[in-house]
Amino acid sequence: MIDFPKPAAKQFLQTLALGRFAVTSNEDQLLFVSNLSGKMNLWSIELPGGFPSQLTFENQSIGSIHVDPKGRYTLITSDFDGDENYKIKVLSPAGGQAKLLIPAEEQTKQFVSHISDDGEYLYYATSQRNPEFFNSFRRNVMTGEEELLVAGEDALTTIESVSEDGCVIAYVKNFSNTHSLIEALDGDKTHILSSEPEEIQEMRRAVVAGRKVYYLTNLHDDHHYLASYDLDEKFSTIIKKLPNASMDELDYDAANQCLYVRTLEGAIAKLYRYTIYGEKWKEVASPFDMFLGLKIAKTGALYVLGSTSTSPMQIFKFTGTDWEPIVTNSVPGVPEEMLVEAETIKYPSFDGLQIEALWFKAPDEVSNGATIFWPHGGPQSLETKAFRSYFQYWLANGYSVFAPNFRGSAGYGSDFMKMVERDWGYGPRLDCVKGAEWLFEQGYAKPDTLYCVGGSYGGYMTLLLHGRHKDLFRAFVDIFGPCDLFTFYHSVPDHWKQMMDKFVGNPDRDKEKFIEDSPITYLENMTKPMFVVQGANDPRVVQAESDKIVNALREKGVQVEYLLLEDEGHGFSKKENELLVFERIVAFLDKQRLGHPVR
Amino acid sequence: MIDFPKPAAKQFLQTLALGRFAVTSNEDQLLFVSNLSGKMNLWSIELPGGFPSQLTFENQSIGSIHVDPKGRYTLITSDFDGDENYKIKVLSPAGGQAKLLIPAEEQTKQFVSHISDDGEYLYYATSQRNPEFFNSFRRNVMTGEEELLVAGEDALTTIESVSEDGCVIAYVKNFSNTHSLIEALDGDKTHILSSEPEEIQEMRRAVVAGRKVYYLTNLHDDHHYLASYDLDEKFSTIIKKLPNASMDELDYDAANQCLYVRTLEGAIAKLYRYTIYGEKWKEVASPFDMFLGLKIAKTGALYVLGSTSTSPMQIFKFTGTDWEPIVTNSVPGVPEEMLVEAETIKYPSFDGLQIEALWFKAPDEVSNGATIFWPHGGPQSLETKAFRSYFQYWLANGYSVFAPNFRGSAGYGSDFMKMVERDWGYGPRLDCVKGAEWLFEQGYAKPDTLYCVGGSYGGYMTLLLHGRHKDLFRAFVDIFGPCDLFTFYHSVPDHWKQMMDKFVGNPDRDKEKFIEDSPITYLENMTKPMFVVQGANDPRVVQAESDKIVNALREKGVQVEYLLLEDEGHGFSKKENELLVFERIVAFLDKQRLGHPVR
Repeated sequence: MIDFPKPAAKQFLQTLALGRFAVTSNEDQLLFVSNLSGKMNLWSIELPGGFPSQLTFENQSIGSIHVDPKGRYTLITSDFDGDENYKIKVLSPAGGQAKLLIPAEEQTKQFVSHISDDGEYLYYATSQRNPEFFNSFRRNVMTGEEELLVAGEDALTTIESVSEDGCVIAYVKNFSNTHSLIEALDGDKTHILSSEPEEIQEMRRAVVAGRKVYYLTNLHDDHHYLASYDLDEKFSTIIKKLPNASMDELDYDAANQCLYVRTLEGAIAKLYRYTIYGEKWKEVASPFDMFLGLKIAKTGALYVLGSTSTSPMQIFKFTGTDWEPIVTNSVPGVPEEMLVEAETIKYPSFDGLQIEALWFKAPDEVSNGATIFWPHGGPQSLETKAFRSYFQYWLANGYSVFAPNFRGSAGYGSDFMKMVERDWGYGPRLDCVKGAEWLFEQGYAKPDTLYCVGGSYGGYMTLLLHGRHKDLFRAFVDIFGPCDLFTFYHSVPDHWKQMMDKFVGNPDRDKEKFIEDSPITYLENMTKPMFVVQGANDPRVVQAESDKIVNALREKGVQVEYLLLEDEGHGFSKKENELLVFERIVAFLDKQRLGHPVR
Repeated sequence: MIDFPKPAAKQFLQTLALGRFAVTSNEDQLLFVSNLSGKMNLWSIELPGGFPSQLTFENQSIGSIHVDPKGRYTLITSDFDGDENYKIKVLSPAGGQAKLLIPAEEQTKQFVSHISDDGEYLYYATSQRNPEFFNSFRRNVMTGEEELLVAGEDALTTIESVSEDGCVIAYVKNFSNTHSLIEALDGDKTHILSSEPEEIQEMRRAVVAGRKVYYLTNLHDDHHYLASYDLDEKFSTIIKKLPNASMDELDYDAANQCLYVRTLEGAIAKLYRYTIYGEKWKEVASPFDMFLGLKIAKTGALYVLGSTSTSPMQIFKFTGTDWEPIVTNSVPGVPEEMLVEAETIKYPSFDGLQIEALWFKAPDEVSNGATIFWPHGGPQSLETKAFRSYFQYWLANGYSVFAPNFRGSAGYGSDFMKMVERDWGYGPRLDCVKGAEWLFEQGYAKPDTLYCVGGSYGGYMTLLLHGRHKDLFRAFVDIFGPCDLFTFYHSVPDHWKQMMDKFVGNPDRDKEKFIEDSPITYLENMTKPMFVVQGANDPRVVQAESDKIVNALREKGVQVEYLLLEDEGHGFSKKENELLVFERIVAFLDKQRLGHPVR
């Protein structure tokens, strides 16, 4: 028989990336963001399924897609080389050059909130003249006439939902990642939806349906649940709570008068349907472990972007009974059974708190005995059973992967999530330490075979673990991680500033804590091999953060590899960059393991 | 209303390129070569139509695809950065790394001729140990055992068709572009298919069906027609002739016992079906003006790659009654009605010979008054009504396009085609001159608004027109064109050498003619602005040809722009290079026209 070569690195990393998507109102076209051409662009396929056409040629990340219900235009928001200064651009539904819709200064960020059913009005938020809290406008798309609807005053404020007749506008005021309130404008009247607005709570995802506003909240509960506010009766009602599940996305199916709710239940997501009339609640079984996007067509047909540990992002249509693949995606040349399914394990932390982690064990036939310890980014995010091409790439290269959802992670209730706030460097770090010790106890790893690799907050954690627990690991890889909480605090975008106090702390008030929790404090201890990756345009973790740690370590004579990506921000908009980084990481790890890279 | 930007250059040039394709034997998958990812790779879609998956990651041109009828492997031939040293590579049907199937030296060229119905045997040709004439082998794909079937002795020889039982092997001996003979091995007996093998004729495209070998020939006729040879009766029969149409492709539908014949009738191609039993001949109406590939599934379903002047390459399935789109393709954001349809015009040349030309008139609303004069490559090829993205790009930029099928072009009979042989620089050149004069007479152009742009032989013609008729044109663009027939004669690949004598002439015997027809002879007259493009790996027109003319002109003080593509050969395997070249050409022309580039 023919002996085919083993799957190459790039087969995993060339897996199609899918981003936002939209369905036209007559459901004849699906528009989606993808790096099919190597870089992120907008594509479309004719429904019920066909060959894709490229609509944009900007080669940039696209943050949202909105289609004129009357089919005259398409709106996208895109930035430039990762700078996150997203602008609203208009293009012909047939594709072509995308044109800036609303004149704005370069630093301005614009976000689409809603398009009216007749396509005449755009509701959008802009940082122009209000960089910290944003202003929201209603704009006549055809004439350019516009009207200020909501001015952000004390919190980052954006419109969440607009009623069919345009009279009711629900907006969310974000004080921090874990504190937000929803209000609604009803003609000239303002409704405070929460019954106890003074309480710290997190309200999210408003939907105006008739004279009710549906939303998710965690008021007096550890988990988010579904509630509604009656605009006439002026009071809120709890609609549905689920034990041990946090509701985190809410979508409205006007055709069938029902709501779709996505929950996070630890490392997996589930989908539920709530029928407003009849008050029926039902789980919708799906082929996915994680939902990354959901669109409801005018007909009520559901289009879902999702994945599992072993199946890359795909878009399926749910007909009510069946899931039909629309945009299919697999690791080229690698059958799904060769990919590694995550095992969910739990271990007790230093204070008895249970920590859940994903454990991907490299198959015996490829295992090299080494393990990658992956503290996720966020930090108020989590590692789920979504497909991770680089995990599978590492696994195929023989590395097992351990990803702990340390305290502060989403998916385990609000109390758990808040545990990282103003405590970036203590509890979560010790959870990681206990995770490493768990691996040692199980016999899965030894300090000599354990490598710490993390991005964003995970990069910060990597640096901190290097500074304070270097003997647990053999080497470290920091991707876009901040090293100094003082400078990080000051360098984030304007609209992050308010929430930084609660999220990270205050450099004056919490000076001692900032020093204790900044990796740069422990520079002297960082003696292990390290590889640092940074995007030159990163607006969240600026290049100075990485320059600082690299220069400081090099001055001490520590060998540090440094890769600066000139045309990226806080992520990868270009497949070639992603490929480069993850290939370099494996080469770096192989070199530590063997004294030379394998390739 | 919203005023969308005019279509950008790259919208035309980003049009998907489609190359070879194949259908699996159970018709569940269509495999095709495309630059969907920006570079040429193999892709597949599930039939009857779905979302594409990438199968290879080599980023190289793929010359052929063959699928194991039993579904165990896929074979491709690919080269490296345009060097045309195509090698047979095997990959898993699910895709992945392609592995060299047959060890070979770097310079070796390998071509797949046939795979047996059980997928056990590969019939292939190789230049190894016979660089000029090739040897053909039967190889057991599983064991690697192989047997020499046909050794090229006096002509470039390749297998054209193998009977179902493997006992009959038809092969073609190519003495030149217009002289070839087909022979057949029938067990240990060799059949000479032509009744008059001593006559100069061009036999092509053999199909072994039962005890007959069908083929196309032009014996005693100006146009190619369908004939068959009876292996038992040992004589040839004329089956079908068409007036004014040359048959140039032949495919066999074993399920329905019929043949499909493609004709060239001037600038358009047509498709006919011949039913063997019943001897029925029928034109198959299609949506295309040019067919670029045709595959017949085991069921008899027909898959066709084709295009028109205004519709890019697409793959359709013909069900017997309908044409169903499988791989769709359009110019993104440009409706078909904005593209320019070619008008076919005729003009008499210096000696009264009628020359057909394509005339694309830039629409009044975009026209800049300038015309691009495009002598095609080949030269024994022609400009057809196939889609040309760069023509449409030029048109959208205001340039009209005139493409004459000068003497020597295919599609107008064998006598016409032979007129370029050993006369590269006289007749065809004067046809071009008369074409330019026709444009002047019609009032379509003036010498001040006419620009000559050509590639390969068209680049040679551009150089020659520059040297001998510079006053007819304002500026010149030479893409991959030879400037010196002496050096060109010696630098072509080995397997071209035999035919060069008839095609171009002999540098010793025809020394005077070579001097007269070499553009370099007229260097002194070349004083107009020129732009030269060359692929560094071009094995047909080597870099030295372009270096020579550029250096010579620069020494004289003539301003010449020179673009050397490091990773290309005699064509474009990389979309970014194609985009670069055609954008640079328009910038160059705009600069001549206006004194500065428009962009």
